[in-house]
Amino acid sequence: HVAGRVVASGPRRAGVLSTVLACLEPLGATVLECDQRCIDDGSETDALRVEFSGEPSDAWWDRLGDRFADLAGARGITWRIVPATDVKRMAVMVSREGHVLQDLLWRCDSGDVPAKVSMVISNHADLAGMVRPSGIPYHHIPVTADRKRYAEDRQLELLYGAVDFIVLARYMQVLTPKFLEYFPEKIINIHHGLLPAFPGANPYKAAAARGVKLIGATAHYVTEELDAGPIIEQGVCRVSHRHEPGELRRLGRYVERDVLGRAVSWHSEDRVLVTGNHTTVFAD
Amino acid sequence: HVAGRVVASGPRRAGVLSTVLACLEPLGATVLECDQRCIDDGSETDALRVEFSGEPSDAWWDRLGDRFADLAGARGITWRIVPATDVKRMAVMVSREGHVLQDLLWRCDSGDVPAKVSMVISNHADLAGMVRPSGIPYHHIPVTADRKRYAEDRQLELLYGAVDFIVLARYMQVLTPKFLEYFPEKIINIHHGLLPAFPGANPYKAAAARGVKLIGATAHYVTEELDAGPIIEQGVCRVSHRHEPGELRRLGRYVERDVLGRAVSWHSEDRVLVTGNHTTVFAD
Amino acid sequence: HVAGRVVASGPRRAGVLSTVLACLEPLGATVLECDQRCIDDGSETDALRVEFSGEPSDAWWDRLGDRFADLAGARGITWRIVPATDVKRMAVMVSREGHVLQDLLWRCDSGDVPAKVSMVISNHADLAGMVRPSGIPYHHIPVTADRKRYAEDRQLELLYGAVDFIVLARYMQVLTPKFLEYFPEKIINIHHGLLPAFPGANPYKAAAARGVKLIGATAHYVTEELDAGPIIEQGVCRVSHRHEPGELRRLGRYVERDVLGRAVSWHSEDRVLVTGNHTTVFAD
Amino acid sequence: HVAGRVVASGPRRAGVLSTVLACLEPLGATVLECDQRCIDDGSETDALRVEFSGEPSDAWWDRLGDRFADLAGARGITWRIVPATDVKRMAVMVSREGHVLQDLLWRCDSGDVPAKVSMVISNHADLAGMVRPSGIPYHHIPVTADRKRYAEDRQLELLYGAVDFIVLARYMQVLTPKFLEYFPEKIINIHHGLLPAFPGANPYKAAAARGVKLIGATAHYVTEELDAGPIIEQGVCRVSHRHEPGELRRLGRYVERDVLGRAVSWHSEDRVLVTGNHTTVFAD
Repeated sequence: HVAGRVVASGPRRAGVLSTVLACLEPLGATVLECDQRCIDDGSETDALRVEFSGEPSDAWWDRLGDRFADLAGARGITWRIVPATDVKRMAVMVSREGHVLQDLLWRCDSGDVPAKVSMVISNHADLAGMVRPSGIPYHHIPVTADRKRYAEDRQLELLYGAVDFIVLARYMQVLTPKFLEYFPEKIINIHHGLLPAFPGANPYKAAAARGVKLIGATAHYVTEELDAGPIIEQGVCRVSHRHEPGELRRLGRYVERDVLGRAVSWHSEDRVLVTGNHTTVFAD
Repeated sequence: HVAGRVVASGPRRAGVLSTVLACLEPLGATVLECDQRCIDDGSETDALRVEFSGEPSDAWWDRLGDRFADLAGARGITWRIVPATDVKRMAVMVSREGHVLQDLLWRCDSGDVPAKVSMVISNHADLAGMVRPSGIPYHHIPVTADRKRYAEDRQLELLYGAVDFIVLARYMQVLTPKFLEYFPEKIINIHHGLLPAFPGANPYKAAAARGVKLIGATAHYVTEELDAGPIIEQGVCRVSHRHEPGELRRLGRYVERDVLGRAVSWHSEDRVLVTGNHTTVFAD
Repeated sequence: HVAGRVVASGPRRAGVLSTVLACLEPLGATVLECDQRCIDDGSETDALRVEFSGEPSDAWWDRLGDRFADLAGARGITWRIVPATDVKRMAVMVSREGHVLQDLLWRCDSGDVPAKVSMVISNHADLAGMVRPSGIPYHHIPVTADRKRYAEDRQLELLYGAVDFIVLARYMQVLTPKFLEYFPEKIINIHHGLLPAFPGANPYKAAAARGVKLIGATAHYVTEELDAGPIIEQGVCRVSHRHEPGELRRLGRYVERDVLGRAVSWHSEDRVLVTGNHTTVFAD
Repeated sequence: HVAGRVVASGPRRAGVLSTVLACLEPLGATVLECDQRCIDDGSETDALRVEFSGEPSDAWWDRLGDRFADLAGARGITWRIVPATDVKRMAVMVSREGHVLQDLLWRCDSGDVPAKVSMVISNHADLAGMVRPSGIPYHHIPVTADRKRYAEDRQLELLYGAVDFIVLARYMQVLTPKFLEYFPEKIINIHHGLLPAFPGANPYKAAAARGVKLIGATAHYVTEELDAGPIIEQGVCRVSHRHEPGELRRLGRYVERDVLGRAVSWHSEDRVLVTGNHTTVFAD
């Protein structure tokens, strides 16, 4: 009975909630869930996410879009309307470690993440066998220092227009700013450290060296600055003095897959709104 | 800038959210936060909590009350309006263990729980010293089998009209149905077991006997059936084979105080809505 | 450099730790890790688990076995010696839900659980495809009310002598006492409720009906009384009023797989000692 | 029945466990608990903690000390013997925030932390009232930029020889290297950030600016480098985009007190062993 959802934000004086209701109600849409918050960054901005019932016809969606353009647009409100039948298309980029990929495949297949894995791209051939039974295309595009640009061009050919967002599921290459421009706020990375601690390579080694008692993982949108983009979700796991880096890597895999799984679910359900370098998560 | 909050619920077809906005907006109130959910019990009921800005005058609040009576009342919606300046008055009832009482006193004193402890009532004198520095009245009313009725009458004399809700902070007496009638959905108990497991007396002993790996605590509204009222919050703590009942009691105290602290905060901020034997918590 | 491990228990006056050292040291074995605890059940019993280095020859293991028989046996101590090269053989029994099976296959395949899945037995054909790529045999043995005995006979033919322990990974049939006799303290079940709460069928439905704020899962050894055997591990997940039973089932899968994964790891590494209806877990 | 405990560490080839048993057993001491681990820093060092029964006479303790000096000393083993009747004397240093102090006082008073608060030292007078009912001396020693050295001299006069360890319970002054030399591995600080993230002042402000989804606290031994000493314990708390720094401060207090409480318990029970910049925690 959920027909769709709206995510909107705008200045408080614009009346974001009233405007959204003024768009929905004359068309017979009923609000089933509504979560409205102020974003505490001093800018008096309100953000909301609404799930609504409605009519399933194309004409109806057109009229809804028109109303938003008229009313919300005029008041400086930003909005996104998503029919519940829309299923986002996801590309997963991986290197050699398969635990996160396997979990994502399962979460999508079991219906827990309402998105579709359209392709897997890897700079290695190792994980082709894991993907094969699903029938999802696996593109092996080697990345070497002197052919990085060529590799990214090939990746973009496959990705652009074909997927709605990209998940870096332990993909060990840094993407260029040019690549990122094609997918703003559409690339989710899982970092195996509790950012801002331990950015960059080898976070488990650094964590063992510092003697921390908790390790963690961070899912974030990728921006130009390495491991510094808006954080979507984080999780932790207790460790002890006995765990050397190899052990931390082993234990950390369970946190990585859970944190990324939640982040991808929330992105797929339009529960994440980015403002500046922060995210508002309209949690389940 | 938060002037007050509304908690409301009603049948979906009544348009709970629209109605609440229709009450607030003509009076110049702006919705700062809004959390609306459907209650999944098959009854098509919507529940919401709104924080709004507004005018501080008594006349304004009167007009707001009138609008709700007119609009919401007519549509079968139940509502509660609470000015942000209202601070609920709490009575704490205790027996001999003081850890939860002390934590509640501190939470209220530090402003974390927006409520005021108006009195402490105990069937023992033990904890009078803990309360004395705060200046809060401590009423020692012994409860014996043959004088239980008399004791409850004395308690009611002190409580009725003088407090808005009651917290049983490890109060080891069972209240009679007659007492409960005076405070429906207004008495919060902390049970030192993870209900529905281990109701009644000695939950830690029962937990040790069963060999569980997690112990917990449950904050719930008190109803006639022992430890069976609507659950507000629960929490857990890991334990092991080495922990005999005395150890569980020691470890459990930290869970008890945290779980009850959150429940009392939420109740004080009108974040808990009871429907049937369930609670909807509009979490912070 | 770990050659093997010993798990031993016995009366305090027997000197369990001294005896184990007296067996190991004359043979040149060095204790690398030692965890000794008293079991607090009033019986003055000590339990310990030791990892040691040593020689890899068969003759050496024979001599070690002889020493334990002589020294520990004479003092009323119970012991188990396991060379580090031993990898336990596991059978997984499933019905239709595959999330726990898939996770177990991955944990064993990735080396995280030091055990080998020797076969999968199911009363349905549904999950054959999930197992096929691994090359592990999948035995489909339908179980109907009138052929339950026949089915168990077939299962026992496959299992007895061929596997070291059995994991019920959401296997929805109750095993008969006769079947259990063949595998005492060797059958691990994952129950999707926080035992002793919600035993039996449909724990998520019962949890939703009671309005709990935490759901959980319990891994335990199977005994004759349903869901009442020694608990190995438990875990929880926060839920809210919005989660009807279907949602709880979806969320609970992540707890189920994690709790069972840890329990199977610990069993495989001889970290679990059963005394009466309790387990001592020598945690990692 | 626990007479005392030994914490010892030394090179593997020295046989730490055997040596400790060789000291205890001829004197009739029985090992009640034993936890031995290798410290994974490449140095082949073993560490252990033992709880034992024994005789309560002074002569017995002398003989035990002599045996350790003879046997363990000769083999390059470091050890510490602590009779169970020893209760460590603690000084608490605070500034203006009292939540951690209050919790420590309660934990000691209720017997949960087996240590005695001997004095409270503060650079402010604010918390004197909180300490007064307990009868514990409260020393107000103002610290100003030009009198820091004088203040530390006064503090040392009170502390040196009078307490066994010091807890900085949100003490907002940096101690000088000279001060630290008097209490090596004896000063525990609670930092309100998840180190190594957010060291220094204002961790909650930094956490809000980065948009993290988890905040935390870290208990560590104080060394010359600010917030870089050996970590004893860490804990976390979920937060969201709605929590500005003031909210994080409020929420973080519960994590701070719990993390520090556990760290102080473990230190008091000789469960923490420092090697280099790491701690081995022989957890309860």
